[in-house]
Amino acid sequence: MKEALEGVKALAFDVFGTVVDYRTTIVAEGERLGEARRIEVDWAAFADAWRGRYRPAMDQVMRGELSWTNLDALHRAALDELLAEFDVRGLSEREKNHLNGVWHRLQPWGDSVPGLLRLKTRFVLATLSNGNIRLLVDMAKNAGLPWDLVFSAELARAYKPDPRAYRMLQELLMLGPNEIMMVAAHQNDLRAAQELGFRTAFVMRPLEHGPQAVPDLTADPFVDVVATDLVDLARQLGV
Amino acid sequence: MKEALEGVKALAFDVFGTVVDYRTTIVAEGERLGEARRIEVDWAAFADAWRGRYRPAMDQVMRGELSWTNLDALHRAALDELLAEFDVRGLSEREKNHLNGVWHRLQPWGDSVPGLLRLKTRFVLATLSNGNIRLLVDMAKNAGLPWDLVFSAELARAYKPDPRAYRMLQELLMLGPNEIMMVAAHQNDLRAAQELGFRTAFVMRPLEHGPQAVPDLTADPFVDVVATDLVDLARQLGV
Repeated sequence: MKEALEGVKALAFDVFGTVVDYRTTIVAEGERLGEARRIEVDWAAFADAWRGRYRPAMDQVMRGELSWTNLDALHRAALDELLAEFDVRGLSEREKNHLNGVWHRLQPWGDSVPGLLRLKTRFVLATLSNGNIRLLVDMAKNAGLPWDLVFSAELARAYKPDPRAYRMLQELLMLGPNEIMMVAAHQNDLRAAQELGFRTAFVMRPLEHGPQAVPDLTADPFVDVVATDLVDLARQLGV
Repeated sequence: MKEALEGVKALAFDVFGTVVDYRTTIVAEGERLGEARRIEVDWAAFADAWRGRYRPAMDQVMRGELSWTNLDALHRAALDELLAEFDVRGLSEREKNHLNGVWHRLQPWGDSVPGLLRLKTRFVLATLSNGNIRLLVDMAKNAGLPWDLVFSAELARAYKPDPRAYRMLQELLMLGPNEIMMVAAHQNDLRAAQELGFRTAFVMRPLEHGPQAVPDLTADPFVDVVATDLVDLARQLGV
C-alpha cells in the first residue's frame, strides 16, 4: 500500500453504479412487470432514460429552481414522465409506487458484498450517496450491504458533487480529509472529493451503462488507487 | 402481538443504558488505568459522577448557554472537571483522550446483540441517541451492534427529549409516527416519543446504575410493551 494511504480510516462509497447495478435490476423488474401486465417495453432503454433524468433533476434542486426534494421524489417525477413517453398505460398508483421502489431493491455487483465485508474489518464504511436515507437503508437490508454508517446528501441538503455533502460526512466522522477515501466509478465524484483533500479510489464498472456502452475507464492521473472491483480494492489496501 | 403494534416497521433505540452498560465498562477501564498508573480511584463513583454531568451539560446546550457541542466534547469537559475532583493527576493528554473514548467502547448488555439480530430480521433498527455519530459508529463496530441506521441527536442539533430529534428520524425513515417504536430504559425518552405518536417499549435495566441503586422499574401505563430485555422484546414482537 502506498504510504499516503496508511492514514486512511474510513471509506466513503458512491453507491449507484459503484456498488449496485441499477441497469440490470431495473430491466429485470421491468420485464417481470411487463409480462404480468402484458405490456411491451424496451426496459433497457427505459432504465437508461430514467437514469438520464437523474443529473438534470438534481441540478434543478441545486440551482434553487426546486426546493429540496429527495431522490425518491425526483425518481417518481421522472417515472411519471417516462411512463407517458414509453406509452405505458394503466398502471395503478400502487404499481407505480412499487416500480419507483426498484431503486430500493437494486442488486449489488458480484464483488460488492465480499469486498465490503473484507474492507469492513479495517475501515469504517460509509455511504456518500445522493440516494435518500430510506432508500439506502432499504437497499442495504435487501442486498446485505454491511455499512457502518448510512450517510446521504439528504442530510446536507446538497447533492454531490456539492462540497457540502462531502464536508458534512467528514465532520461527522471527526476525521481529517486525508483520512477518508472516496470510492466511486465516476470521475466527477472523485474530483470533488479530491479537491477537499480526500484520498480517492476509482472503481472500474465497464457494465454500468450496459453491454453496448463504451464507457471511459481511463482513470484521471489524480486518483490514488484504480481498482477493477471492490475485492481488488481490498487487496490493494492490504486487507 | 397487540394489534396496534402490527404496523410497526422500525425500532428506534436509546443506546446508553438501554443497549450498552456504561457503568461496568467505565469501571473496568478505569481500574485497568488505575493499576497501570498506580492511582487509587473509586471508579464506580467516578462513572456515576461522569454520567451525572450528562443531562446538565445537554441542558446547557439546549438552553442556548452553549453553542452546539457534541457529546464527545461534553464528556471531555466533564472528564477534566472530574479528574480534578477525584484528585487524579499526571495523566497525559493522550491518556485523557483515550479515557474519554471509553464511551466509544461501551460493552453491550448480554442480551443486546442476540436480541438485535433477531429484531433485525423483521424491523429497521435505528439508533436514536444523544451520542454523536462517530461515537455510535465506533461503538457499533467495537460491540458488533447490527444497526441498519446510525441516527443521532447530532443530526438534528437537538438533544433528546427535544421533539426535533425524534421527528427528524421519522422524516428520514418516511414513516408515520405509529410505524416507529421507541425502545428505551428511560421513561422521559419514551414519553417524548409517545407524545409524537410513536409506539413505545420500555426495557428494564435494573443494573444501569449499579447493584446498589434502587431504580424505578414501574413502567408508566402509557407504554405499549414492557420487556425484560431485548430478546424478550423480540419474543413479544413475534420475531
